[in-house]
Amino acid sequence: MSLLSIGTVAFDSIETPFGNAERVIGGSCTYIALSASYFAPKVNIVAVVGDDFPQADIAQLQAQGVDTSGLQIKQGEKSFYWKGRYHHDMNSRDTLVTDLNVLADFDPVIPESYQDCEYLILGNLTPDIQRQVIHRLRKRPKLIVMDTMNFWMEVAMDSLRETLKLVDVLSINDEEARLLSGKSSLVKAAQDILQMGPKFLIIKKGEHGALLFHQNQVFFAPALPLEDVVDPTGAGDTFAGGFIGYLAQTGDISFDNMKRAIIYGSAMASFCVEKFGPEALTKLTAEALNARIREFVDLVQFEIELQ
Amino acid sequence: MSLLSIGTVAFDSIETPFGNAERVIGGSCTYIALSASYFAPKVNIVAVVGDDFPQADIAQLQAQGVDTSGLQIKQGEKSFYWKGRYHHDMNSRDTLVTDLNVLADFDPVIPESYQDCEYLILGNLTPDIQRQVIHRLRKRPKLIVMDTMNFWMEVAMDSLRETLKLVDVLSINDEEARLLSGKSSLVKAAQDILQMGPKFLIIKKGEHGALLFHQNQVFFAPALPLEDVVDPTGAGDTFAGGFIGYLAQTGDISFDNMKRAIIYGSAMASFCVEKFGPEALTKLTAEALNARIREFVDLVQFEIELQ
Repeated sequence: MSLLSIGTVAFDSIETPFGNAERVIGGSCTYIALSASYFAPKVNIVAVVGDDFPQADIAQLQAQGVDTSGLQIKQGEKSFYWKGRYHHDMNSRDTLVTDLNVLADFDPVIPESYQDCEYLILGNLTPDIQRQVIHRLRKRPKLIVMDTMNFWMEVAMDSLRETLKLVDVLSINDEEARLLSGKSSLVKAAQDILQMGPKFLIIKKGEHGALLFHQNQVFFAPALPLEDVVDPTGAGDTFAGGFIGYLAQTGDISFDNMKRAIIYGSAMASFCVEKFGPEALTKLTAEALNARIREFVDLVQFEIELQ
Repeated sequence: MSLLSIGTVAFDSIETPFGNAERVIGGSCTYIALSASYFAPKVNIVAVVGDDFPQADIAQLQAQGVDTSGLQIKQGEKSFYWKGRYHHDMNSRDTLVTDLNVLADFDPVIPESYQDCEYLILGNLTPDIQRQVIHRLRKRPKLIVMDTMNFWMEVAMDSLRETLKLVDVLSINDEEARLLSGKSSLVKAAQDILQMGPKFLIIKKGEHGALLFHQNQVFFAPALPLEDVVDPTGAGDTFAGGFIGYLAQTGDISFDNMKRAIIYGSAMASFCVEKFGPEALTKLTAEALNARIREFVDLVQFEIELQ
């Protein structure tokens, strides 16, 4: 079943206590698409780059099974560029540069061949554009997943709330859940946010795992304890891409299947952070992924017979 | 099988953003013993208080099945007193007052009736005293669990390392694991610490759950997402008490049973933080505990058939 991802395709420069990467391919749409491509038979993207974006990187996306006919290439313009520096704990970072470039006036155009998409994931972008994409699809997808960030809550909360009304699953981190709801307890934050539109809420806690809330149910998936975290950039998007990719592959959007999707998303994210940029996502084998899923099972499964 | 807990029995004054508690009964030994008493048939304590300690609070411990014949009462002296203030996120706190009082020259005396103990838990105290207790037991217990804190790593690391060589399970938090090992990755920290003596290492992550390491195995238990956390004081000791209490009840110290023990310990801690002081631990029913264990099962269990 076909899957459509919108978001950014960009250059990232990344500094961590363990090394640097200069102008590697990045952006929410890139990580989502690369991760989802391991599961979904067809991954379509709608995004924009400048004419500085290397053809080789586009070919790399295509080689992973990504349909790039919705990737606009703006002649005479430059691609979105982000530069950030991670702190020693790797859980927080400073943004050093954000050059919107082509993103400043991005008008998302949906190719005719994408109109049948059943799974839509709105990667981090202005909530206006996210909503525009939903309106430009003639048929509402079976499932709409939305990612966003604290920045939009600070500068575009009204628009964000409009978009929230239209989506099925919201994926944000713990700090963003607290900011969006004004509640410090994540359980209370989730109760509030589930009144805003989404029927499912994923709260990502980085190295501390992720929670899935739906009605009065809650599921928790840990992050795999890793020896070395090299670069957390794109981990959240990789998680979201694995999540929706698995749902699209199985065609089952029940709560029980979303649990599995969260485990697959967490496994994909665990690979992502072991290399700079999306490098790990382009070299992944089914055997390596299965081995990692087994590690998740071993990590959390226990048997208790209640007295 | 009998269980012996050493540690502090104290008065705590606690300030949180949600309220205050003045001079409630506290201390590592108190929380451990109250929590373990739900599982272990006999809980013995070795600790010291002053003559200001209310008989009613001792009677309360006895009513929960705690044998207090090892509780020394020093006439003319005052009990250990701690006062702390939690920050808004409830994950960090400032210590406002630490009056050692009777603790300054605590000489742990083991009653003859305790000499047969099979399960020993060394609550947070100077590593010298913890070691002394081990040496004063004529027969080495079947399992020795040790809790400690960053303070002893800063002022008594050599003594701490001596004590570590004698114990089976070490229970510390993530910050302490990093401090003890000098490694920021918890996986690497665990590898190092498992070379220092303990065969099992528990790393507590507060609201983010707990990890159990043994050889090349790792198990993770989440903390239950709670609507309201009223007072985190004693949560780590309550967790440790439930852990060793369950092991003593079942008489099984395998890795698989330790997984269950960690779930029981986490469930006990989840009750502890819902009230000020140890109040929740004195009113707990088997039904409430079983219901909470079921919540843990629902929270983390998933079914995946690997392809």
